[in-house]
Amino acid sequence: ADPDAGRKLARQCQTCHGLDGIATIPIAPHLAGESQIYLETQLKAFRSGKREHEIMSVVAKGLSDEDIANLAAWYASIRITATMPD
Amino acid sequence: ADPDAGRKLARQCQTCHGLDGIATIPIAPHLAGESQIYLETQLKAFRSGKREHEIMSVVAKGLSDEDIANLAAWYASIRITATMPD
Repeated sequence: ADPDAGRKLARQCQTCHGLDGIATIPIAPHLAGESQIYLETQLKAFRSGKREHEIMSVVAKGLSDEDIANLAAWYASIRITATMPD
Repeated sequence: ADPDAGRKLARQCQTCHGLDGIATIPIAPHLAGESQIYLETQLKAFRSGKREHEIMSVVAKGLSDEDIANLAAWYASIRITATMPD
């Protein structure tokens, strides 16, 4: 999988999920640093109808297996750090 | 919603998702910093059967609306930062 190709494809994701995978709206999850397998599994679930969302079910239908692998590689390549509240 | 109560409940989540919401295994998503509404929506979707996963569908059935709100408040209270690759 090619994260640079995924980064280009992620232009269509960034309105909601951010190019860096930090979501811009509360109904969308952050994708930054999620694993390759998790991201691929969810995109394929949206594409097949196993998982449903009014936007993602449409978006995923336009993605090939290669697109999905590349998008997953992009978001998986982002490093995240978490800070718990005091 | 009470994030401290959620933190206690999150003991049952931490094997896969981490107490700080950084997942410990690739098939599980990071939850750190996801929004209250996203986390509640997903837990309720697993509870109702709208979203399916062999582990989460079982776990979610044991959660009340209050439990879900508190768990979401805990994971939403964690701050994350993302660093894109060069």
